[in-house]
This record gives sequence, structure tokens and C-alpha cells, in this order.
Amino acid sequence: SEVIDFHYPNELLQRNNWELSDEPETLDDILISCRATLKYAIKTAHPRYFNQLSTGLDMVGLAADWLTSTANTNMFTYEVAPVFVLLEYVTLKKMREIIGWQDGRGDGIFSPGGAISNMYAMLLARYKMFPEVKEKGMSSVPRLVAFTSEHSHFSIKKGAAALGIGTESVICIKADERGKMIPSDLERRIIEAKQKGYVPFFVSATAGTTVYGAFDPLMAIADICKKHDIWMHVDGAWGGSLLMSRKHRWKLNGVERANSMTWNPHKMMAVPLQCSALLVREEGLMQSCNQMQACYLFQQDKQYDLSYDTGDKALQCGRHVDIFKLWLMWRAKGTIGFEAQIDKCLELSEYLYNKIKDREGYEMVFDGKPQHTNVCFWYLPPGVRYLEDKVEKMKRLHKVAPVIKARMMEYGTTMVSYQPQGDKVNFFRMVISNPAATFEDIDFLIEEIERLGQDL
Amino acid sequence: SEVIDFHYPNELLQRNNWELSDEPETLDDILISCRATLKYAIKTAHPRYFNQLSTGLDMVGLAADWLTSTANTNMFTYEVAPVFVLLEYVTLKKMREIIGWQDGRGDGIFSPGGAISNMYAMLLARYKMFPEVKEKGMSSVPRLVAFTSEHSHFSIKKGAAALGIGTESVICIKADERGKMIPSDLERRIIEAKQKGYVPFFVSATAGTTVYGAFDPLMAIADICKKHDIWMHVDGAWGGSLLMSRKHRWKLNGVERANSMTWNPHKMMAVPLQCSALLVREEGLMQSCNQMQACYLFQQDKQYDLSYDTGDKALQCGRHVDIFKLWLMWRAKGTIGFEAQIDKCLELSEYLYNKIKDREGYEMVFDGKPQHTNVCFWYLPPGVRYLEDKVEKMKRLHKVAPVIKARMMEYGTTMVSYQPQGDKVNFFRMVISNPAATFEDIDFLIEEIERLGQDL
Repeated sequence: SEVIDFHYPNELLQRNNWELSDEPETLDDILISCRATLKYAIKTAHPRYFNQLSTGLDMVGLAADWLTSTANTNMFTYEVAPVFVLLEYVTLKKMREIIGWQDGRGDGIFSPGGAISNMYAMLLARYKMFPEVKEKGMSSVPRLVAFTSEHSHFSIKKGAAALGIGTESVICIKADERGKMIPSDLERRIIEAKQKGYVPFFVSATAGTTVYGAFDPLMAIADICKKHDIWMHVDGAWGGSLLMSRKHRWKLNGVERANSMTWNPHKMMAVPLQCSALLVREEGLMQSCNQMQACYLFQQDKQYDLSYDTGDKALQCGRHVDIFKLWLMWRAKGTIGFEAQIDKCLELSEYLYNKIKDREGYEMVFDGKPQHTNVCFWYLPPGVRYLEDKVEKMKRLHKVAPVIKARMMEYGTTMVSYQPQGDKVNFFRMVISNPAATFEDIDFLIEEIERLGQDL
Repeated sequence: SEVIDFHYPNELLQRNNWELSDEPETLDDILISCRATLKYAIKTAHPRYFNQLSTGLDMVGLAADWLTSTANTNMFTYEVAPVFVLLEYVTLKKMREIIGWQDGRGDGIFSPGGAISNMYAMLLARYKMFPEVKEKGMSSVPRLVAFTSEHSHFSIKKGAAALGIGTESVICIKADERGKMIPSDLERRIIEAKQKGYVPFFVSATAGTTVYGAFDPLMAIADICKKHDIWMHVDGAWGGSLLMSRKHRWKLNGVERANSMTWNPHKMMAVPLQCSALLVREEGLMQSCNQMQACYLFQQDKQYDLSYDTGDKALQCGRHVDIFKLWLMWRAKGTIGFEAQIDKCLELSEYLYNKIKDREGYEMVFDGKPQHTNVCFWYLPPGVRYLEDKVEKMKRLHKVAPVIKARMMEYGTTMVSYQPQGDKVNFFRMVISNPAATFEDIDFLIEEIERLGQDL
């Protein structure tokens, strides 16, 4: 079966009647529309779909999502979501225990994606240092600066833009050749910022960068944050789930010293989209930072313990129930079940790495075994491989991945992402998060790249 | 059947084993957990559940949400969500046509709830006036002030806090006794702010306030915004859907002059949670305000028309597919189907209003026929009704609604919200958004309030 039945946008618009009209359509039409929607949808559960960090489809997770849809409620109060509120409480506590915060204490929330989780962290860090910002805005505080590595996710800058901090106040710290933040550069830039009179308030370390899958050295970063009294956030949207693996969790050593962490079970734990958690070490901070005490929702004279009305610590008012699918999957497979599927994906990526690292026509973007399931490589077709003019070679190589990717989509056989990075021309970024993927699927990917790229 | 099987949080924690452990549970346990979750969940589709603005369960909407879960993808690119991206395009255009923007032109996005939609609007208004804020932050701009009515939703202040504007820079405009913003007070406060050297940049008018269901006078507000060159936003999270009704859409006259509008189909159109749209009149603004051009997601050398990669205009990175349930429901019932269900809910609320406005023991919170389905009233039990000491009477009355509400939840027969407002003691706020509700359900509610409150 195919991963994708690709059509250009204008073509897809013609393939069905998608228009909305005054009159109802027939039930037949509804079924035709559903079939067309599924036919042209990407088969994200296909074991050869490697395109994004979220792949796969867990049957218990899907059942849980269907139950969630059926319950059709909001997370703002215990009154309207008693079970889901308790399950969020239980699950966040468990996740904090796994991070290593004492007795699982702290706070947290499930938010609509890692970008929003990261934005929450930045918001909390600012409020912690300058609580008056809530009422008085940024004009009441000195110029704040945040730090993150040049390989970090774009949501850090996006959050800074939204929060009125500004993208220029996000200082990008150099990463080493494996994509890890260089702690000495971080400290240098913090000191430099202080000398300019700016106030460093937030460091976002990344546990599992989007492209390289790199883990920033959390212990060294924690030391620096402690020394300079700066909020340490760990963006573990992609790599946080490695905490579930006894074999791989050392890559996050130091996360227990962070003030907050983003962790997206919808990525490496294959929970259906969306399921992203922000975890916060200090209790009560989210509430005081975000609460507005709307009396029509958070009545103070209800009959039950109001600490379960968690809605006022959110930026959202109504909040989708994202907890049940994670909770039910966790019950169904246990921590060891998640561990097994994570370990398996990492094993597959190591297999891929070993297969291509010395293979004719391949070049690795960085040396060494992958730390996460990201394997970054160039495929050099015969026509490019032996070019002597380096400039010409790079120019040609830059076009190889986009053409192979477009052909993959047209044949519908597999999908994998590519991108340039800094001065590096377009390369493939393989990621594996679908526990249904096999060694054969990896073999197939390589054969397919060679088949589709040999004439380039 | 019951609306709720109420248990206190500690009790509910005991009623099932909700803990997460290392080992997997059996399939039997999973089924028991699912049953327990449904048993203790609130029956939000029950025709006697009047507690929130989102109620009901549409079968086509549910089927569409199940299909969405099965497709398990993200909205960021055409590459991974071709059909859903096109359907969002088609639906947003249709919604803009209904607003009355020329040829349905403009922009928009489905966001995780009305609070975030409102935050987007504020973000865009700020960027439109001071584009440098994106890079330089709030320290580069003068002190901004926003305006909204004292009855508006708390998300306006929450947004201002998050965006670094500060809650004190949100000026609350007086509302009349029906809860509508008083335009002359708006203009007075705008002029006053300018005299202080502040820069008015954003007016959020409400179309359907949360408690009273009031519609601010949009035409008069549009005149003022035009005169003072201020971004006009309409928060129609609750009342926006009345645009679908030929009978009721006049209440939003003037919305076509707004710069942006929040409209939540998950409320009055009974689309499963969540489904909230932000609509923007100016094309291209969302993109330039929010884009960060991450090259690993929004590659510029793809084979298809990149204008369909809409992800970079979002604050989120991954974004849940909220469009399909709305689109499929719209196909299944047509605009006239939504109109019929909206008209019916408004008819039910008028029935309730007529039933209680002169009934012994009831007092309306404000005079006149409801404009939306909100009916706000006090029930005065016999023991309170004839009290002569006004202070004592109000003190006693304040406690009536919470007690009746707690009893409703314990009997499980119905749920309706209550709150104080300004100097008004606790009153019931009835809202009807479930097309499955009937005249009998309204009758029942009144009987039940009297049954549960007669001894108070």
C-alpha cells in the first residue's frame, strides 16, 4: 500500500466537490467525501512514513481518542471533566517523578503542542523574575534576553515575538558539530548581555533537536543557570521521551535540575496528535502567572475541592482533552512498553546509521552514532559523486534531496524529510518514531533513494 | 438517564485504580477503565446539560472527529495534510463571505479555542501598528492600550498579560444594564488615553457575552475605531454563529467592518470540541507577523504551490486538525441546517424567558427578551422571597444558586451555571446550545430548581 496518493493542490481541489452550500448533501455524498478524504490523506501510520517526528497509530491510543471525542468536554473544571482532570493530575505527577523532581512535586499542563508549551515556559520564567509584568507589561521591566542554541526549535523565537520580548532578544548560542549547545559560549554570551545592561532570564536547552536529534549538555547548562540565577527550560518535545528508557535516559542527565520541561508524548511515544506536556518544578507559579479569576467559570462557592479546577492556570479557556489517550496507552503497555518501543526505534536508527556510514555514495552530515533516531545524510548520485568542482558539486547536491523527495511523493512509496542547515546544502533527515517500522523498511528506504536518485 | 454521577475528587480517586505503573495492565482492566471513565464523565450531550456554552453531540461531527483521529496528522503543511489544508481554506473563505468581507477575501486560522483566537487578534493588531515589535519587543513601542467592555471574556486580559502588554493596559468600558458596551464611554476613554500619551491599538467588541449573551453595538464601535484608526476585533466566540441565521444575524450588523473576528463553531453550532476560528480581513498579515521560516518544515524548494503551507502563520508548530468535523457537518446539514438548529435554541431560550419573567419567585437579572440563548435569573425560594431586610435577603439569595447547583449535581438530573456579576449576587445563567433540547427539558429545569430550592 502507498504512503501517499499525491496530487497538486489545484488538482486535488478538482478531484472532489469540496464546496459548502446552503442545502444539505445526501448521506451518499457524505460517505464519498469521507472516502476521498482518507484516500488523499497521508498514511502517517505507514511504516515507511518517516517524514515527521509524529508517526504511527497506536490502537489503544486511537480508541482512547474516540472515547475522548464521545465524551466531548473541556478541561477547565473538575465540574465538567472530573475523570480527565484527575487523570491529568496522576499523569503529570508520574512524569515529574520520571524527570526526577522530588516526590513528583511541581505543576504542569497539557497544551496544544510543543510550541505553546515552550511559550508557557518563557512566560513563567518572565513572571517569576518580574511578577509585575502581568499587570504592567514589558514597559515595567528591564530589557530581557533569552538564550537557546542555534539548532533549537523556531518556537523559542516565535514565543519571544508573541510575548513582546522580541526575536532580537533571543540570543543564539553556538552548537558543536554534533548540534549540541556549547556551554562556554552560553556563559560568554550571558556575561556579555549583562555587561550591556540586559537581564538574562531564560535559557532553553534542547533535549533532542529537530534536525540532528542532539541533546544539549544539561548538567553544564544547569551549572551556568544556577550560577547566574536564570530559569532553565528543557525543550524535550522530541527527546524527552527517552526518559522512559533505562538505556537512553542518561542523555537527559541534568534535566532534574531544570525549572521546566516540554515533553511531547505525541512524538516518540506515538500517542495520537496532540499530546504535549509542560512540566514545571515550582508549584503555584502557573496559577498566579495566568489566573484571571473569572467568576462565571471558577466559582469560589462550589461544593468540591477547588484545587481541581485547573483551568485558570492555562492560557486557553476551553482546553481539549489530550490526556486520556496517553493515560490509556500507559495503562495498556506500562512504562516498560513505552521503553520497548523507544528502544526499538533507536535500534532501527542505529541500523540505518551502520548501513550507510561507509556505503558508496553516502556522506554523513555529522560523525558518530546518532543520539536520537535522527540520521542526517547526503546521498550523492553517481552524476554528482565524482564532480571535482566543489562549488558545482554542492550546487548540484543541494537539488538532489528535493528531487528525490518529490519523486517519493509521486510514486507514493515513502516519505522522508530534508532541509539545509547553516552552510550545509540540502540533506535527508531520517527519523523513526513509529514502532511498526522494521529493518526491511529501512532497507527499502535506502534502495528507494538510490532507485529514484541514480539518474541525477 | 443522569447528566452526572457526581463524586468528590478524593472519592473518585478511590473508585478505580487510576495509577500508572511499569507493567502493562490486562485488556480487561483497560475496558474497566474505559467504562469507569465514561460512567463518571459528564454527559455533555444530555439535553438537560446546560452548564457550558458547548453542549450536545452531533453524530456526523463525531464521525468526522473519529476519522480525524484515524488520519492522525498535523496542519502545518500541505505535504502532510493535503485535504485538511484545502478544507480549511474552503471553510475559512466561506466564513469570511458570511461575515461580509468582499469576495470572502482575507485570512484566518483554526486555533485551540477562543482565548487563543482572541490573543492572535491582539498580536496582529499590535504588529500591524508597530511591525518592529516582532524583532525588538515591547521596549521599542509606546505604551499601548486596548479596550473591551467590562462584560467581555477574561481572555482579553489574559492575552494582554501574555503578550507583555499588561492587564492594566486593558481598559474596561462600561456596559449598559443589558451588558452592551456603551460607545460614548469607549470614545471618552480612547480620548483620555491619548491625552495621557498612550496609544490605543485594539478594541475588542463582544458579540454574545459569556454571562448576559449581549451583543455590543458593532456599527457604533466601528465608527469610533475608524475615526481613531484602531484595530477592531469582534469576539464572536459565542455569538458569532448567529451569522448563520437570517433571523438573528442583524445582531452582528457592523461585523463586516471589523479587522478580525473570533467565531467558535464548537459553541452554538455544536461542532465537537475544539473548533475555533480567527478570521482576519487583511491578507498576508498573519504570515508576516508570525513566520520564522524554519527551513526543516517550510522548505522553499518543494514541488507544489507553497502558499498552501500555512503552518508558519500559526503560533503553534504542530496544529491539531479541527477543520474536518466542521466541514463534514456543514456538508451534511448545509447552512440552512445550522440555521435551523440555532433558531431552535433561540426559540427555546425565549420560551424560558416568557415562562419565568412573571413567574412567582423569579426575578430577571436584566429586562427584555434575551438576544442570545442566555437567560439570567434569580430564583427566590419562599424563605428568601418575603424577607424585608434587603441586606439579609441578598446575603441569603447569594447562597441559593450554589446550593441548588450542588444538589442538581448530587441528584444528577441537570446542570446549569451560576455566578455573581458586579454587585449582583449569584444568579443562574441558562444557556442553550444543544439542538437536542426540548420545551420539556426547559420545563423540567424550572421544576427542578423549585424542587431543589423550596426549603432554602
